[in-house]
Amino acid sequence: MLSGHPPSPPPPAPRPPPPVFGQMTILGVGLIGGSLALAAKRAGAVERVVGVSRSAANRAAALEAGMLDEATDDLAAAVLGADLVVMATPVYTIVAQLRELPRLVGPACLITDVGSVKGPILAEGDAAFPDGRFVAGHPIAGSERSGPAAARADLFVEHNWVVTPGERTRPDALARVSALWRAAGARVVSMAAAWHDQVFASVSHLPHVVAYALMDTVACLERDGERIKYAAGGLRDYTRIAGSDPEMWRDIFLMNREALLTVMAEYRRALDRLEAAIRAGDGGALTRQLLQLRVAREEIGHRP
Amino acid sequence: MLSGHPPSPPPPAPRPPPPVFGQMTILGVGLIGGSLALAAKRAGAVERVVGVSRSAANRAAALEAGMLDEATDDLAAAVLGADLVVMATPVYTIVAQLRELPRLVGPACLITDVGSVKGPILAEGDAAFPDGRFVAGHPIAGSERSGPAAARADLFVEHNWVVTPGERTRPDALARVSALWRAAGARVVSMAAAWHDQVFASVSHLPHVVAYALMDTVACLERDGERIKYAAGGLRDYTRIAGSDPEMWRDIFLMNREALLTVMAEYRRALDRLEAAIRAGDGGALTRQLLQLRVAREEIGHRP
Repeated sequence: MLSGHPPSPPPPAPRPPPPVFGQMTILGVGLIGGSLALAAKRAGAVERVVGVSRSAANRAAALEAGMLDEATDDLAAAVLGADLVVMATPVYTIVAQLRELPRLVGPACLITDVGSVKGPILAEGDAAFPDGRFVAGHPIAGSERSGPAAARADLFVEHNWVVTPGERTRPDALARVSALWRAAGARVVSMAAAWHDQVFASVSHLPHVVAYALMDTVACLERDGERIKYAAGGLRDYTRIAGSDPEMWRDIFLMNREALLTVMAEYRRALDRLEAAIRAGDGGALTRQLLQLRVAREEIGHRP
Repeated sequence: MLSGHPPSPPPPAPRPPPPVFGQMTILGVGLIGGSLALAAKRAGAVERVVGVSRSAANRAAALEAGMLDEATDDLAAAVLGADLVVMATPVYTIVAQLRELPRLVGPACLITDVGSVKGPILAEGDAAFPDGRFVAGHPIAGSERSGPAAARADLFVEHNWVVTPGERTRPDALARVSALWRAAGARVVSMAAAWHDQVFASVSHLPHVVAYALMDTVACLERDGERIKYAAGGLRDYTRIAGSDPEMWRDIFLMNREALLTVMAEYRRALDRLEAAIRAGDGGALTRQLLQLRVAREEIGHRP
């Protein structure tokens, strides 16, 4: 017969961490705002979520999906009592909202945004909140779908959430906002705002310009016959993002204009090199270029 | 008590259709050649598959995967006794092989190809086989992966297989080759060769040039820092196809040069329109362009 110590009592269940924020007010209840609401609620990282949208349909959809405790089109009412305001609107709207918020929010309320351009927004946020409670950020997650119907609680899981603190940004504000992004499943990475805008001009904004231009080309040619039905996966993947929200992308292209025009010039040079080899029928040059690009692509693709 | 007729005997099991061809010899055992071998064998549409490849590794891999009954690097031996020869090599290699085949194949052997450019190949095939037994074709299926390891028996299922018969093409040869493509699961569609080359310049060859140019741009910029790790799905999707087989795409770009340069010029005009609106900071023009493209994309995307 086996004898032994009586079983020790099970360890107490880990208590869930206290919420990072009481009331989170999200301006813009689209893909990103809606997904953040779902993710923060699921993680128990906020006590209450208020959403602001001009669109009655979006407000109703967000309430019905359980992502919001309250939805309104009244900015002043929505941010009253907020512990955190998240701006999830097109980037020029964020700038306009940053000019309104200081007279509407309480003195302890933190402010953050999810815009795809960071330099001008950080400058505006620092000017609006010189005490350093504005934290600029950009979650690297998205979809060509938009609106609350596309929102998902796991949209940010294992994605980078870039923060671009400036000299004024208060470390405790940065830490608390970062804790919320981590609770939503994201990895928080810090970059200088200007470098962020250069990097995303090339890895995100340029590919969108290119997708729109491809779509335009095929749409123009389409007049003379039905081409697209012959496209395999390739073109459909490309033009998929040409279905993205036009207002959002217009704002991004214009706000990051300088960096975008720089990488577009680089892109035109790359196109020129390929076109020159094709026009000259120079198989050797073309093979060298395509082999180099395959190698570069593999190196880049395998990077962790 | 129920009474009735005794149950009628079950209908005889449908007899599998007889094979469409006895020996099929495939020149090039890569993604397309390998997948065709697998699909034709699975459908019982051929009795025997012989594969030709210069690469000993590809021959061994194809034999091991059971896609070939015999593999060799000897073209003459492989096509001796073939009822169908399928050229699944880069398009300039197809042209070279079309010049060799007439003195190697038997008088009843049909000849076909799977090249992505059709005009020059049809002309060469008609010259090589003036009796009309060359059938030009192009399966619209693929992957950025290449080689026999990427082959799949279902690669063609519910994909279009374009045939581009010319004035010389014998109707019975076209019908028999088309029956094989249907047995592999494809929908056979017929187009004029010149129109095929214009359409695929825009929906396939241009997107590949664009992917290579994007990859080149990011690779050039990458020298000043690690950008790519910040890319979300977008750029990775785009540059995925920059990993495609360089020899295959060099050949396609050069053989379809004229049509490709025409659509590249159209593409540059589209890029110019977007760039002009961005440079001018013209939000109204940009919104109109992006909205139009979203509408065009949706119309095109919803087409059956």
